Amino acid sequence: MKPLEGVKVLDVTRVLAGPFAGMMLADLGADVIKIENPKGGDDSREFTPFQNGHSAYFMSVNRSKKGITLNLKTEEGKKIFKELVKKADIVIENFKPGTMTRLGLDYNTLKEINPKLIYAALSGFGQYGPYSSRPAYDLIVQGMGGLMSITGYDDRHPIKVGSSIADLLSGIFTVIGILSALYARRKTKRGQMVDVAMLDCLVAALENAVARYTASGKSPAPTGNAHPSICPFETLKTKDGFANIAVGNNALWEKVCKAMGLEKYINDPNYDTNPKRIANREKVINLITEKTKTKTTNELLKELMAENVPCGPINTIEDVVNDPQIKAREMIVEIPDPTGQMLKVQGIPIKFSDTPAEIKCSAPELGQHNEEIYNKWLHMKKSHIKKLKEQGVI
Amino acid sequence: MKPLEGVKVLDVTRVLAGPFAGMMLADLGADVIKIENPKGGDDSREFTPFQNGHSAYFMSVNRSKKGITLNLKTEEGKKIFKELVKKADIVIENFKPGTMTRLGLDYNTLKEINPKLIYAALSGFGQYGPYSSRPAYDLIVQGMGGLMSITGYDDRHPIKVGSSIADLLSGIFTVIGILSALYARRKTKRGQMVDVAMLDCLVAALENAVARYTASGKSPAPTGNAHPSICPFETLKTKDGFANIAVGNNALWEKVCKAMGLEKYINDPNYDTNPKRIANREKVINLITEKTKTKTTNELLKELMAENVPCGPINTIEDVVNDPQIKAREMIVEIPDPTGQMLKVQGIPIKFSDTPAEIKCSAPELGQHNEEIYNKWLHMKKSHIKKLKEQGVI
Repeated sequence: MKPLEGVKVLDVTRVLAGPFAGMMLADLGADVIKIENPKGGDDSREFTPFQNGHSAYFMSVNRSKKGITLNLKTEEGKKIFKELVKKADIVIENFKPGTMTRLGLDYNTLKEINPKLIYAALSGFGQYGPYSSRPAYDLIVQGMGGLMSITGYDDRHPIKVGSSIADLLSGIFTVIGILSALYARRKTKRGQMVDVAMLDCLVAALENAVARYTASGKSPAPTGNAHPSICPFETLKTKDGFANIAVGNNALWEKVCKAMGLEKYINDPNYDTNPKRIANREKVINLITEKTKTKTTNELLKELMAENVPCGPINTIEDVVNDPQIKAREMIVEIPDPTGQMLKVQGIPIKFSDTPAEIKCSAPELGQHNEEIYNKWLHMKKSHIKKLKEQGVI
Repeated sequence: MKPLEGVKVLDVTRVLAGPFAGMMLADLGADVIKIENPKGGDDSREFTPFQNGHSAYFMSVNRSKKGITLNLKTEEGKKIFKELVKKADIVIENFKPGTMTRLGLDYNTLKEINPKLIYAALSGFGQYGPYSSRPAYDLIVQGMGGLMSITGYDDRHPIKVGSSIADLLSGIFTVIGILSALYARRKTKRGQMVDVAMLDCLVAALENAVARYTASGKSPAPTGNAHPSICPFETLKTKDGFANIAVGNNALWEKVCKAMGLEKYINDPNYDTNPKRIANREKVINLITEKTKTKTTNELLKELMAENVPCGPINTIEDVVNDPQIKAREMIVEIPDPTGQMLKVQGIPIKFSDTPAEIKCSAPELGQHNEEIYNKWLHMKKSHIKKLKEQGVI
């Protein structure tokens, strides 16, 4: 048994944030039906990179789902959607706010059909507020949410996170919203609407930056890779690259000095406490870097780990894919593309002892499960399904 | 009613990832009891910044909880913990793997006392695998998980995200694990262990980087702030700073040209399709930047928005705190510190229509709810609580 077995989800999302939420629910065991327009489907089916003509991007965020087509702009399509809603626990959508209302398929309409429905709407700025109708892209939200202003070394070069973190965070928080609403439904016997915005989620992930602003009255500056109040705790240069090091206390200072042949500095009155090392940060980093620059990253990490100094490499994606811990945790797994060739994708980051989550299948091809789902959910006959296809409804 | 009303959580976490998970559950309506050692409590009570002598850091990730003290190293403390476990739905801990076993309070022991218990363990590398016992810090996990290798402009300057994103992601995924296990428990009538690692969660958030690696056989390079396959879609310089712009199609190219007085380039055969703009990226960016550099960010955004070009500022934290959308969504709220002065913290990024989540109270002072909780949960008398305190048990 999987954790969410029996939960029925209609996933009318596109591109990244919504599909990622649907995929998590599917990996957790829910029956997730991805509904796409019959003319091409999810935009991300066209996104690079491709493997054997199929978008690896699309496949990597739509696994474990079944896929059907349905044209929500046709009257027949709307009718069929409402029939599906009667059987569903959850609808997830990530259209621009207002789109589902224009289609006549908004929460207020659907709850009349199924009062137990949980309706999750994911958008850039949320369902209300002055920016609600603006288009959002991850880059724009990372800028507006303040994260770019505290990332990097210098406020003359604001930097965005290398993955679409605003999209991903909103997908993840949407899952929390849905699961919480499922829990509440046990008592209330009612569904509800869950409204999640990328911008809100990014703000929630600013960590202590807001507290620092309130306490000091000043906007935090980008902190680079160095810890603002611990030293040495940052990225250091090596002969062939970089390594991270985290010397959180004086015992670790002693160890790092030993590992680097810098024993004479262990009790040096300029460096023997963290406040002194912070005050003399440049000197500390120069001292250590003179040593680290003479070693390859692998040599350095081996020497530091021998002394139990917290440290680690800056892994490339290739390193990640081949890392023994990441392998042991099944965080890189393989699924077949439609031609049967395997594609590496990320695994499931929640390990359950009793009801493990599981990748059920690869992402569906467009309309792959039309016959199965329309028959199983709505008892449609083959001939009717064929007719709907000819009419462009599915 | 709040979504998780009635759920009882024992939160024995410290610092960031675990406390953040506990806080989400508390905001969602669970009764979260934060259990701290009587000698100083959570390390983060000493973390800067401070407001009126209280850590704003601690307060910002422990609101909505009640707080008790308990020394888990004493026999009496262990006994009391087990009594609390009998009444709890959930235990969350973020000790190094093995610590709870050494204390005799691991999942296998506790499930004998309470078979319905959900036990969530959050750690740097997870409960198994070759790195399981290594110490983890956010910086080190960001490096090992590959995110630093794709963030920034250049692989000679790997950059970490400005907030502790590995910690936060693991806290958020832990909540999904807990809520999924709660759902499964309805059917299985059993609890289970949920094992979440910071490294796994970071890998799960690499988005399409792994797919790009598999499809091309090469590790993706840092992409800076520019979209790899759309142009112009990046951070541009203005007279007084920067702005993000996202020109996703030819209609938007026309609009951005109009807004910038560059009409003559709309149909220029060097720039009239996205592939051509990508091929001539440097020229495109130079053309536009010559215009954007003559305007302040506010002027520029006004002009672009008038043409409905997706764009946005690089907000500082002060800008975020004062942003009308973020205010309208209640994503910056105030809670009182123990002296009564207000502290700004982030709000709750999930908006429920029927059972809204809510910040219940400020973070507890050390042992603030000892009398209330020990009396309510275990029916202890005041005199007994006083004795336990004198003995250093609580």
